[in-house]
Amino acid sequence: MVVGPSEGDEDVSMAARSETNEEPVKVALLGCGTVGGAVARLLSEQADDLAARIGRPLEVVGIAIRRPNRQRDLPGIDPSLFTTDAEALVRRGDLDLVIEVIGGIEPARSLILTALENGASVVTANKALLAEDGPTLYEAADRAGVDLYYEAAVAGAIPIVRPLLESLAGDEITTVIGIVNGTTNFILDKMASAGSGFSETLAEAQELGYAEADPTADVEGFDAAAKAAILSSLAFHSRIALSDVHREGITEVSSSDIASAREMGCVVKLLAICELTDDPEARVSARVHPAMIPLGHPLASVGGAFNAVYVESRSAGQLMFYGPGAGGAPTASAVLGDVVTVARNRVRGAAGPGESSYAERAAATIGDVVTRYHVSLEVSDAVGVLETVAHCFAEHGVSLQTVRQAPVRDGSTEDARLVLVTHDAPDAALSATVEALRELPEVAQVASVMRVEGQ
Amino acid sequence: MVVGPSEGDEDVSMAARSETNEEPVKVALLGCGTVGGAVARLLSEQADDLAARIGRPLEVVGIAIRRPNRQRDLPGIDPSLFTTDAEALVRRGDLDLVIEVIGGIEPARSLILTALENGASVVTANKALLAEDGPTLYEAADRAGVDLYYEAAVAGAIPIVRPLLESLAGDEITTVIGIVNGTTNFILDKMASAGSGFSETLAEAQELGYAEADPTADVEGFDAAAKAAILSSLAFHSRIALSDVHREGITEVSSSDIASAREMGCVVKLLAICELTDDPEARVSARVHPAMIPLGHPLASVGGAFNAVYVESRSAGQLMFYGPGAGGAPTASAVLGDVVTVARNRVRGAAGPGESSYAERAAATIGDVVTRYHVSLEVSDAVGVLETVAHCFAEHGVSLQTVRQAPVRDGSTEDARLVLVTHDAPDAALSATVEALRELPEVAQVASVMRVEGQ
Repeated sequence: MVVGPSEGDEDVSMAARSETNEEPVKVALLGCGTVGGAVARLLSEQADDLAARIGRPLEVVGIAIRRPNRQRDLPGIDPSLFTTDAEALVRRGDLDLVIEVIGGIEPARSLILTALENGASVVTANKALLAEDGPTLYEAADRAGVDLYYEAAVAGAIPIVRPLLESLAGDEITTVIGIVNGTTNFILDKMASAGSGFSETLAEAQELGYAEADPTADVEGFDAAAKAAILSSLAFHSRIALSDVHREGITEVSSSDIASAREMGCVVKLLAICELTDDPEARVSARVHPAMIPLGHPLASVGGAFNAVYVESRSAGQLMFYGPGAGGAPTASAVLGDVVTVARNRVRGAAGPGESSYAERAAATIGDVVTRYHVSLEVSDAVGVLETVAHCFAEHGVSLQTVRQAPVRDGSTEDARLVLVTHDAPDAALSATVEALRELPEVAQVASVMRVEGQ
Repeated sequence: MVVGPSEGDEDVSMAARSETNEEPVKVALLGCGTVGGAVARLLSEQADDLAARIGRPLEVVGIAIRRPNRQRDLPGIDPSLFTTDAEALVRRGDLDLVIEVIGGIEPARSLILTALENGASVVTANKALLAEDGPTLYEAADRAGVDLYYEAAVAGAIPIVRPLLESLAGDEITTVIGIVNGTTNFILDKMASAGSGFSETLAEAQELGYAEADPTADVEGFDAAAKAAILSSLAFHSRIALSDVHREGITEVSSSDIASAREMGCVVKLLAICELTDDPEARVSARVHPAMIPLGHPLASVGGAFNAVYVESRSAGQLMFYGPGAGGAPTASAVLGDVVTVARNRVRGAAGPGESSYAERAAATIGDVVTRYHVSLEVSDAVGVLETVAHCFAEHGVSLQTVRQAPVRDGSTEDARLVLVTHDAPDAALSATVEALRELPEVAQVASVMRVEGQ
């Protein structure tokens, strides 16, 4: 299937080009689910525009699928292109470009490696694989002198890889904070607007199709952690693996946390935070956890299933990239953008910038990270309690920014609520403080503990 | 001045490279004002990182300046590099890369053309020149087979050129709406928060350094119009010139307009709007004017001197790019990003994607644009006035979405205020309606007329 303008459409100057220049760019598509189907549809519908932008038509020579009998609504796609033998497809040897939208580790990894070894460039949307084993793929692409592009793997349709890798290549990025998981952002939004708890909101999100039947990858932060590994590798020109990312999900977030955030002029978001530590080695801290951010922060108003990536750099200052983080069509848009660049590189006989990991920064552990905590305690309303609590913080070297005391809301006169916000301190000191607070007889309950970011 | 790691720093594998590979990338800088000074500083400070990202060191071989006696605080820059003969500098013949940050039409245009003809790639921040005469430059770069990059020309440090030209190359962009002028955004923000008029707010902005002594380019929309021409050319793969852009500034915006906007749940912003018309030819409408946008729109919360570009495309949906729109360091960040890409292209012997104008769409005139109007009238509070006003709209083929009547605020009992919002209609019909309304004896005053966008 040559999905480009026919020869009859070409003008005189085009006809004057040599015959080799008219060769189509040969593409294989691996996977034809939600994203793959959208990619196949756009390759067909946008054929003329793609050919104009690339300089040659694209020809889809095969589409690898798992279930040949599944009904597919793909007008314009020749059914003879479907094959269940993905391995044979990537071994053809005449491919310019392989698009991998199967997802997961295997067989995606083997197929991509085989494609690269056979001289094809690869466009992938596979965040799990890149976070798990990116360097193996980058090195294989580098050895073969071909491209490996993956814009769709981070924050769906939001153009973030080129900005980090190219637009900001002359700058020093210091912080990247992403809202990169639409499901958890939707749930936290709903909890805030309805005042409801996590479990009932998750059930509602599942009913509406915003959360999967098994929501673990989203609500436990695995999906966001994979994206944090990719973002921090890009931003800091280093290799940060999934295992380097500290991960906490949103299952422990309570309506009380969200109410406390509101009282502080904040909202609760699940953040993927990538930043350099302040020590002389400037290690990379990559972490995913729920946090309070002030309402005035650009990320605070990113609602529902939208994603956003906030970037701070020494020269550019504060930047933010916003858009849909998932879905067939948005992800396909990101894939097709890469397809055009990679195909253009093939036509020009060049490769794109490739991986940049020269800085070789080490990963920091969560205990070393400097952050702030919001702690809400239910304490007995007795003489000396505040002193005891304050002493507990001081003992661990943590200084307090604000302290607020109020009677507890249920009208009981014996207990009081103590809301404390710390100054910056090492995360290890902060969590040791919280552990010690739980042991104090004066503390009836640690009602809410959450990191405060973005200030 | 070789601003890269010295040979002694290189490891064994680097030393094994052939001598030609060790050649530095030769750079000339034209202009050393706010932006040029920041570029020179970063080229020196970031030399090691830039060399690692490019694969070879950069060598600044000359800096063209106008005023040799001006005091410059540029540690690390050899004073012998300064020259007042920019023409001789770009004619050297051994340059890889020329950075133009002089601004204005001449001599910038001649210098860029000479540089391109002599085989150097060019990075420029010159929005006025690109909007005025971009195609001449694009064609010269294409003929010479070199790069012409201009990320810094639109929306300062916000990466927007690569996203439009590359990330979204597989998608169809339908709308681009930008807040691309920080001065006017600052003034409109201040007018809204302080309830003050245009003139006094402009004076305040001038005092604070947010507006220039001659504010014409900003407040009359010339700066935004240049950016609209560049953005619409990029988004729609066509050549849209500055003269194709309809332009209205903010000097006529009154505190009454801003109050009316608030009553409607909107804010007033100076927008650069680039979109395709609905007719079969799908022409490009590029226009700059103040407009009301709903508070829920992603652009509504872009405050102060920040810029943002909102993009709608068929597959990706709604995207937004946010950041500082001006300033020496942010603009230098965008310039340096281009420098890295262009230098990398030189090292690889390839050129970037270049201009994409294959679609050859025509520009629409403002009269053909379909939009909505908000009209606020002071009318005599007499029988039949509403009917007369409604008839005037109907006569011009404009239908009304909402009509609201209230007594005027000063407590006078003889007049009433009539606030009307139209449905979509051709701009020509809407402005003819407003002209006719002004002639009606029942209409004491047309208090506010403004387009409503973003819904």
